Parts: sequence; C-alpha cells; structure tokens
Amino acid sequence: MSQAVEKQTAHLNELVEAIVASYDADERTQHLDSEFLPNRDEVIELIGELRELLFPGFFTKQKLTGENVRFHVGELLTSIQAKLQWQTYRSLRYRRRSDQAGGPDDHARTEARAAEIVRQFLARIPAIRTMLAGDVQALYDGDPAAKNLDEVVFAYPGLVAISTYRVAHELLLLGAPLLARIMTEWAHSVTGIDIHPGATIGQSFFIDHGTGVVIGETTHIGNNVKLYQGVTLGALSFPKDERGNLIRGQKRHPTIEDDVTIYANATILGGSTFIGRGCIIGGNVFLTKSVPPNTQVQLKSPDLKVKERRDLPAAAPGATDPQ
Amino acid sequence: MSQAVEKQTAHLNELVEAIVASYDADERTQHLDSEFLPNRDEVIELIGELRELLFPGFFTKQKLTGENVRFHVGELLTSIQAKLQWQTYRSLRYRRRSDQAGGPDDHARTEARAAEIVRQFLARIPAIRTMLAGDVQALYDGDPAAKNLDEVVFAYPGLVAISTYRVAHELLLLGAPLLARIMTEWAHSVTGIDIHPGATIGQSFFIDHGTGVVIGETTHIGNNVKLYQGVTLGALSFPKDERGNLIRGQKRHPTIEDDVTIYANATILGGSTFIGRGCIIGGNVFLTKSVPPNTQVQLKSPDLKVKERRDLPAAAPGATDPQ
Amino acid sequence: MSQAVEKQTAHLNELVEAIVASYDADERTQHLDSEFLPNRDEVIELIGELRELLFPGFFTKQKLTGENVRFHVGELLTSIQAKLQWQTYRSLRYRRRSDQAGGPDDHARTEARAAEIVRQFLARIPAIRTMLAGDVQALYDGDPAAKNLDEVVFAYPGLVAISTYRVAHELLLLGAPLLARIMTEWAHSVTGIDIHPGATIGQSFFIDHGTGVVIGETTHIGNNVKLYQGVTLGALSFPKDERGNLIRGQKRHPTIEDDVTIYANATILGGSTFIGRGCIIGGNVFLTKSVPPNTQVQLKSPDLKVKERRDLPAAAPGATDPQ
Repeated sequence: MSQAVEKQTAHLNELVEAIVASYDADERTQHLDSEFLPNRDEVIELIGELRELLFPGFFTKQKLTGENVRFHVGELLTSIQAKLQWQTYRSLRYRRRSDQAGGPDDHARTEARAAEIVRQFLARIPAIRTMLAGDVQALYDGDPAAKNLDEVVFAYPGLVAISTYRVAHELLLLGAPLLARIMTEWAHSVTGIDIHPGATIGQSFFIDHGTGVVIGETTHIGNNVKLYQGVTLGALSFPKDERGNLIRGQKRHPTIEDDVTIYANATILGGSTFIGRGCIIGGNVFLTKSVPPNTQVQLKSPDLKVKERRDLPAAAPGATDPQ
Repeated sequence: MSQAVEKQTAHLNELVEAIVASYDADERTQHLDSEFLPNRDEVIELIGELRELLFPGFFTKQKLTGENVRFHVGELLTSIQAKLQWQTYRSLRYRRRSDQAGGPDDHARTEARAAEIVRQFLARIPAIRTMLAGDVQALYDGDPAAKNLDEVVFAYPGLVAISTYRVAHELLLLGAPLLARIMTEWAHSVTGIDIHPGATIGQSFFIDHGTGVVIGETTHIGNNVKLYQGVTLGALSFPKDERGNLIRGQKRHPTIEDDVTIYANATILGGSTFIGRGCIIGGNVFLTKSVPPNTQVQLKSPDLKVKERRDLPAAAPGATDPQ
Repeated sequence: MSQAVEKQTAHLNELVEAIVASYDADERTQHLDSEFLPNRDEVIELIGELRELLFPGFFTKQKLTGENVRFHVGELLTSIQAKLQWQTYRSLRYRRRSDQAGGPDDHARTEARAAEIVRQFLARIPAIRTMLAGDVQALYDGDPAAKNLDEVVFAYPGLVAISTYRVAHELLLLGAPLLARIMTEWAHSVTGIDIHPGATIGQSFFIDHGTGVVIGETTHIGNNVKLYQGVTLGALSFPKDERGNLIRGQKRHPTIEDDVTIYANATILGGSTFIGRGCIIGGNVFLTKSVPPNTQVQLKSPDLKVKERRDLPAAAPGATDPQ
C-alpha cells in the first residue's frame, strides 16, 4: 500500500503540471492573476439578507417588534451595504480590466462609483417593497389554492423569482449587470423561472407554479400580467453582423401589454410581437405574430388520434365510467 | 474615505427610517410583532431528518446495523418530534392569530393540539414507508435506465417529490397545511416537480425526469399511475363569486384513474375531466374533456412544414444519410 | 406537562419498535448492515472541488496567481483524489455485494481497482478542460444576451449541466455509474437540465435556459449542437421481455448529428430516430421519425381559435394599438 501511495504522490506532481499547463493553454476557462472578480457565494448571501430586509419577520428566527426592528434593519443594512459595496467594486474593477481600461487613480474612482451605486440602490428599497406588495397581492388574488398572503411569502416560487428580479433589475440599471445576472440565475436555479434582469416588468406581476418560464432580456411586460408554468417569452431569430457574429443589444423579445394572461406552456417569440392589452393566450399556443387588444387565442380543438388500447393492462378493469 | 464613511453612516439612519416607514405603510409584506410563525429553515431540516427515518442507511455517514438502528431511530424521532411539535404549535397559534381567534387558555390548548397532530403523524410513518416501497418499485420497474432499486433512492428526483408529498399530505390532513406547503415547495425547488399537498395520490406512483410536472390541489390520482416530465394536471377556469373574488376550495383539477400513463408535456385540465382506468395519453396532448377507460390518445401525425435549409451551415456536410 | 412528556416517552419506545419493524418488513427502502454505500453529500462536495479545478480562479475567494496556482491545484487534487478514491471504493464494494459476489481478497482487489479508476479519471482532466472551453465558447457565441465569456462561467446553468455531465460521463465509462448518476442528478436539481451520464455528446455543446431539457441514456449527440429549454430527447417505447420486465441497455433515444439546432420544447423520440447533420428543428415540434440532413422542420402555421374577449377586463382599456 505505501508503495502505491508513493507512486500516487509522484503521479500527483505530473498531474499538477499537466493541469496547470492546460490552464496556460486556454484563457477562456481560467481566471488567474485577476483580483477583481465578484464572489458568487457572497452575492447569494446578499440575496438572503435582502429578502430579510424586504419581508421583515418572515425569515428570521428572532421575534421582530416595533421596538427592535430599527436595530435589526440597521444591522442588516450595514451588512448589506458592506457586501454590496465590495462586490460592486470588484465587478466594476473587473469590467475595467477586461475592457483593457484602468489607470493609477482607478481605485478611488471605482470605489466612489461603487458607493454611489449602493447608495442609489438602497434608496430604492422602499419603492421595491411597494412593488412587491402588489406582486404578493396579485399572487394571492390569482390562485385559488393560496390560503392567505403569508403562504405566498413563505412558499411561492413565483415570489422568489419576481423579488430577485426586481432587486437585480435595479442593480443592472445602476450599472452592475454581472451581479444582477448572478442573482437572477440563482433564482432560476431555485425556482425554474428564468427572468433576465434586463427585462422590464410592470406592477402586480403573477407567475404560478413557474417551472420552465423564460423571460428574455429585452421583453417588456405591462401591469397586471399573469403567466403560468412553461411560458416562453423568447427570441425568434438571432441577426448576425457581416462577420457572422451575433448582434447583441437589439430588441429580440416580445412586448406584453397590461392585463394579459398567458396560460401554461404557451410560447411567444420575437421583438416586434405585441400582445395587446387584455389578451388571453391559451395553454400551448405558439405565437410569432402580434395580437390586437382584448383577443382570446386558443388552440383549435386539438387534432387527436383516439383509439381503444390494444394491449389491455394486466389487471384489466371493470372500470367505473368517467363522466 | 473616513468622511465618506461618516456621510454613509448619517445616510444609513435616514435609510433605516425610510425602510421602517415602508414596513408600517403596508402590512402585507411584513410580520412584525408576531411570535408564531413557522420557521422555513427548520421545516427544511425536518424534511432531511424524515428522509433518514424513511430510508434508513441511505443518507447517513455512520453504518447502521441491526444492533444500533434502535438508538439511531430513537434519537432521530426525538429530534423530529421536538421540531415538528414546535413548528406545528407555531403554525396553529399563528393561524388562530390571523383568524382573530384566541384567548387566555389558548397556549395549553394549542400545545395539546400540536402534540396530538405530531403523535398521529409519527404513528403513520410505517404506513408511509409501505407506500414509499411501492413507489420505489414502480420507479425501478418503469425506467429501463434504472440499474437497481438503490439508484432510485439515491438519485431519482421523482422519489424526492413523491416522498415529500406523502409526508406533507399527512400533515395537511392532520391540520398543518402551511407546514405541508412549505415542504412540497421545497421539493418543487429541488426537483422542478410541483405537487400540491392537498392532491390525493394512490399507490405505486411513478414520475420520471419530472421537471415541469404540476399536480394541482384537488387532483385525484389512482394506483399505478405514470407521469413524465412537463405533465400538467391543472385547472381550466377559476370561478369567481359575485364580488369578483376567486372561489377557493372547489374541485378544479382532473381525476386520473388507476393504471393510466401520461407521457411528457401532456396537459390535462379541469375538475370534471376524468381519465379512465388504463388510458395512455401521448406526449404533448392537450385535454379538457374526459376520456373513457382503456383509451389511447395521441397527437395526430403532427402538421409540420418541412423544407431544405436555405442557409447551409458554414462547414457544409457531405452528411451521412440517416436511416 | 411532565405527565405528557412521560407519556410521550413511553409512546416513543412503541414508535421506535413499529418503525424498526417496518424496516425489517421491506428491504427495498432500507440499507442496514451495509458498509459500502457511496455518500451523496461527499459526492456533491466533490463536484464543487472539481469545478474549482476545472475553472480555476472563478469560484475561490483567494486570489490565484501564476505562482500559487501549483499549490492550490496540488491541494485540491489531494482532496479530490482521497474523496473520489473512497467513494469509488465504496461504490465498487457495494456493487459486488449487491451482485452477491465477493471473497476474502476482495478488499485489496477493489482498492486497486478504485485507485486505477481515479488515476485514469484525473489524467483526463486536461482533456475535459479542452472540451469545456469549447462549450463556454459555444454558449457565448450562441446567446446574444451573454456579455462576455466570464458571465457564462459564472451564471449559465447550461454550463453547470454540461460540465457535470462531462465529468460524470468519464466516471461512468471508467466503471463508476452510480457516482456518475448522483452527480448528474445533482446538476438536474440545480439547473432543471436532466442529462443521463450514459449519453454521448460531442464538442461545443450549447444549452440555453435549459429548464426541462431531458437527454436520455442512449442519446448520441454530435458536435456543435444547440438545444433550448424544454427539449426532450427521449424514448418512444419500452420493450419488455417475455416475463413483462423492461429490457434494459438497448438504444432507445435518438441520434442528433453535427450542427443541429433544436428550439424550445421540441420533442424527439426513439432509438432509430436520426436527425441529420445541419437540421433545424423548430419550437414545439414533436418528432418520432428521422429527418434527412440540412432540413428545416417547423410547426405549420398553428391552428388557432382567435376571437374577441367577451368578458372585458375590469378596467377596460382604450388600448394602444399593437403593431
């Protein structure tokens, strides 16, 4: 055995060399010598602390009261501010580096810029809470299975996705798109709901069940819109420049006006596809064209092949008739 | 820098006030001054401990033997009992509070009620294990990729979702619906399979792959039913009362009788939709009407537009012919 | 209260007996007296360490430089080697046990076999990195929302699923299928993308959004293939032997040749279904037959029922016309 161990140790050295050589060979999958990467784990901790700040009393073990809540919020904010400042600073520095910019006074300038982003973001917390109260109400009002508003806050994946999106969207607007994307991809992982932080979404947004929902980067969604599981608001095509590279930044995803409901597994594609106010889009519908306001779109009575089963199941039933 | 810090501190106080003011302004998204909320993290710990109890030896680092297993089970049960009692008590108190009920002897009464729920729940563990053995067998029997029963217990998301549902369903029946919902939403998050704890599901239930499956609150599922990924058993419409509020508690989701198989991404909607015993529902089928027993329902040969690609890919192939 | 506690303690003993009796009654859901099970939590730790090894600098808190990277890799490899050896050993012993094989010199033989598997696996790390660099590039090139390659490594669920698959596939080929399956099911849980480790997948593989993707055990996928969310590459039927048991190990899943793109929620089924080189399969298409090279397959202009909404939404709109 000890010989085997020795052999393995020698082998280990060779392995280390081979692997490090593979780092040198391809820069795309390594990040050596770069100080300024955001840290994914800390960004995810931030989401948890922001959730406590946005929904006080729901996710803390201690009891929050009218008296102690100021201390709790002060402490939370101090922690959030420090982490967010650090991660934003790292993201900004990192971006400058990867854009080949930067200079001697970069440190101070970037620090000031990060502080400004954090300041503006935290000032928007009350406004974000107002939006989220509307979302919680919409989730309750739209789901007959919801027993009360608290169940929505405790358990609804739609709210996890929407609240993470609302936070991330602000950060993206303020100039921290990588932090924003790490946040929404965390929510995607936890809920199966993939909302790009660049999308624009109005008040009282409702997503039920949610697994499989995809909302692309340039989607516009109005107020009081309802989506069910598996709905895709996606791109229809990917225009390329003359070198064959994708053109980035164009509007590629649909616009959904106020008061629209889109049922499960419907797909709506294209940057010039408008779904007019008050429309109802049925389950499984596949749309690549605009629809005027107050229109109901459904699958035609589905074309099905119906026949008796030839291979009756083992314990053939004297089955009760369905009605 | 220190000036910036001072400024930030002053700013922090303003922020705290603004955020606390937003708590006072909207009760829907805060839970101050309420002692009796269940704690989501502890409920999730409970799920892990229950999994060890239900599948002994699979998820523990120590070796369990015929000799030490009693001690292990005793310890686990003590921990489960304490946590479940506390969380149930909190849920019940919380519910009374939110229903505006309660009185001086509430504490003792609620404690006794919680103890009774926990007692009855734990007494059902052997019965739950019998159901789960049937589910494990069904998952193995129905999936040619399964190498043995253990792989099912170790790795199959269908089993995570079904076992969490079976536990949560008992808790819901015994009167702890919020705990039940937190549990199944945890499973939803981990598996992409969304089973409402109120659904009724028979023996030997099979879900393969599972991402995107939705099983609504009032669904009835018989014995030996098989579902694949993306299947929705959902509601067709949401009747409202004269004030325009949703009517809660009606049967809105389908009934699936014994020995039915429903292939990937099929959608079945409506509280009076019955899928008769022994039916096979094909992939992508969309159904809002009942189907008599032993019927096979498939999409008609799909209407496709097939044409040669105009824009051949860069490295145009002398492609091998497919067969 | 103390009486209640006493009663509960007596009750606890009964419960322990009842539950242990249920363990004895059904072997399918217990693993008592077996020393050699892999430990799921440690396998998941391994995935995290392998990710640090495969993408150095992205997920570590410390700064990696050209100088310290050898030490970091050496340390990581030592930890990975020990864990992987131990888990592989346990899996192999466990398999021998469950196959009723084994003998006195089993220990040494299995240890040597596990060491050999680990040695060969670690030697493939540079090759796996080369494949992953191609995947990262494909994910960037194919998604107009990606801002740079790093965002792909940090945030893209497709990369989590593909990199876990590439690691697991090697382990399966080397003879550790249960470890492999635990790994890919972890990735499934985190991403909603279910790739069986037995599938064969070529270079520069692209999956965007990804939730709901299912790639079955015997699928073959060529180079430069692109899949979107909800795509199923599945089985069409499950042939049984004369006793009615499933036949395992046959090719049941499709073959996708080089340069194929399959859009969201398309379903392709069957072991003799070949999608020829350069094909484009449109969203929601359902295919059970082969398609010749360079073919574009789309849904025919979808059959929809379009009508004006009878029940105008409460705040009826003087809606802006969509274009």
